[in-house]
Amino acid sequence: VLVTTVLDETRAAIRPLDAAAVAAARDRQARLTKPPGSLGALEDVGVQLAGLSGQCPPPLPQPAAVAVFAADHGVHAQGVTPWPQEVTAQMVANFVAGGAVINALAAQAGADVVVVDVGVAAVLDELPGLLVRNVRHGTRDLSVEPAMTRDEAVAAVEVGISIASGLAADGYRCLLTGDMGIANTTSSAALIAAYTGAAPEAVTGRGTGIDAEMHAHKVRVVARALELHRPDPSDPLGVLAALGGLEHAALAGFVLGAAASRVPVLLDGVIAGAAALVAAALAPDSTAAMIAGHRSAEPGARIALDALGLVPLVDLDLRLGEGSGAALALPLVQSAARVLRDVATFDAAGVTEK
Amino acid sequence: VLVTTVLDETRAAIRPLDAAAVAAARDRQARLTKPPGSLGALEDVGVQLAGLSGQCPPPLPQPAAVAVFAADHGVHAQGVTPWPQEVTAQMVANFVAGGAVINALAAQAGADVVVVDVGVAAVLDELPGLLVRNVRHGTRDLSVEPAMTRDEAVAAVEVGISIASGLAADGYRCLLTGDMGIANTTSSAALIAAYTGAAPEAVTGRGTGIDAEMHAHKVRVVARALELHRPDPSDPLGVLAALGGLEHAALAGFVLGAAASRVPVLLDGVIAGAAALVAAALAPDSTAAMIAGHRSAEPGARIALDALGLVPLVDLDLRLGEGSGAALALPLVQSAARVLRDVATFDAAGVTEK
Repeated sequence: VLVTTVLDETRAAIRPLDAAAVAAARDRQARLTKPPGSLGALEDVGVQLAGLSGQCPPPLPQPAAVAVFAADHGVHAQGVTPWPQEVTAQMVANFVAGGAVINALAAQAGADVVVVDVGVAAVLDELPGLLVRNVRHGTRDLSVEPAMTRDEAVAAVEVGISIASGLAADGYRCLLTGDMGIANTTSSAALIAAYTGAAPEAVTGRGTGIDAEMHAHKVRVVARALELHRPDPSDPLGVLAALGGLEHAALAGFVLGAAASRVPVLLDGVIAGAAALVAAALAPDSTAAMIAGHRSAEPGARIALDALGLVPLVDLDLRLGEGSGAALALPLVQSAARVLRDVATFDAAGVTEK
Repeated sequence: VLVTTVLDETRAAIRPLDAAAVAAARDRQARLTKPPGSLGALEDVGVQLAGLSGQCPPPLPQPAAVAVFAADHGVHAQGVTPWPQEVTAQMVANFVAGGAVINALAAQAGADVVVVDVGVAAVLDELPGLLVRNVRHGTRDLSVEPAMTRDEAVAAVEVGISIASGLAADGYRCLLTGDMGIANTTSSAALIAAYTGAAPEAVTGRGTGIDAEMHAHKVRVVARALELHRPDPSDPLGVLAALGGLEHAALAGFVLGAAASRVPVLLDGVIAGAAALVAAALAPDSTAAMIAGHRSAEPGARIALDALGLVPLVDLDLRLGEGSGAALALPLVQSAARVLRDVATFDAAGVTEK
């Protein structure tokens, strides 16, 4: 019997950019009342939005929603961060109460926030603004055993797909990735090394701010995990299960769900970059929907974005997570669409061309 | 008799950042529920806004208005751009009709647009959204004689002061610089070279997009002007009159007026950078109010911002002007204030510190 999963269906629905809409957007950019190319990287975003939607001008990417996927990490036991694990659940409460940075930034950008417990190491109650989709209460320690079973990884991916599909069905026209999980930069580094072949020391950063000694230890933990699992990039679910976090899995699904719905997905920092590598391995055309919100201070973020062929919009030395860099980039993405929709052409405005 | 001009009064009213509010903002940044320093450059903007307003948290920098100062340039006669001079007036009409890029970007950012004719080489009628404050119909050719008399320069500076003061009095809490003037990157290059001592070839760029031959010619025109006038940076009005445009003069006044009103002023690209050098030469403490919106593709912009000690927020290879880079940066500035105002502290949120 053929068993078709939600993940299989989602992968099958993902298509590249629409070439005709891309061409129409490039042509329109050249006729708008501005010197050709003078809006730099913003012009490329506008073209991508046209190609994704199949329309020129593309619809404005609003309303927008940021989904913050929260989970804990068994590798926390290795002492890779000075923060206690309970901070993950405490910050979930902070998100739900509206007191975190992502709440402030999303409010300023006009985006809604939804928080998803996909793997917090605590029993949380469903609340307004908090969806409990807990697959397990934190991963196993990736430095000594696979972080997840394949079934757990698929379940978490499908949580992300269902959140993205649901938001798209509710009328959201731009999705932003958010994440919370103490120790998740360690898992991110391992995933990025596995997918790009980069060395552990090249992808492992200071996270929320650790000293040189803890950083050296964190690099060794990542290196040990890679030696233990010998991840095979041609088996994306195997890599994810061995090295990922439950929020990485959910974020990969969120990206796939957005791509299948033809809704742009704005990536936050290094956790999103790692998850986007998983998504691209599962469905290469999903990069059509990806926009890199910002260049994180984490070194692995740059390596992940380079591997994905994505150019980040904001570069402010941020290293917070939560979706903060994506929220800050949202107005830029909306502006890119607005230019294609609203700016007059030379002909229409009666402006002489050079 | 003592004659006190508007310019003198404005210069005298400008003060540095309030040290107590700066200290309070730095302290508050450290207590918010985020890793210390994790919002990168955004934290510095928040601290500056607190110091400028004298309050922590600072008021949100909204509502915001972008003032687009339009003027023409006698140096256009030297063939430094492929665009005909009449495009300045045509683009003013486009701004007033709402069809230009700045209209789209300001609308997306929630900012109002006011267009000011401070020196267009045409007789324009006052219209809703267009203020006619024309000091003269374009400057003289800076490569053969002073672009303005000192009186004309002061008159244009005072136009800018009065626009900024008026907007502040109307309740605007963030001012954005905009500009329009065919050939104004040539004048900007000359001003930046005069104030920073940089070589003409280091500050002269491709403007709206010129070929290598025209660029080499443009460098020679700038070099010739510097040789002719031998500008003395200790005489800011003399430098401005010799090499500036009427929009540069008005923008310098706009910056001074904002600084005197303790309202942040978000600088656009290379024209604003040149004008900000004039403002800083007239009143060094005016840098307290300046925020660099973006890093223009024009090489002189980077040199001007470095001389002013300003770090740009957006870096998207923009080279449009009009205020486009300032408008794109506005949500970032508002976000910086929003974080200081709205984010919970570790204590208040019950989150464990590392």
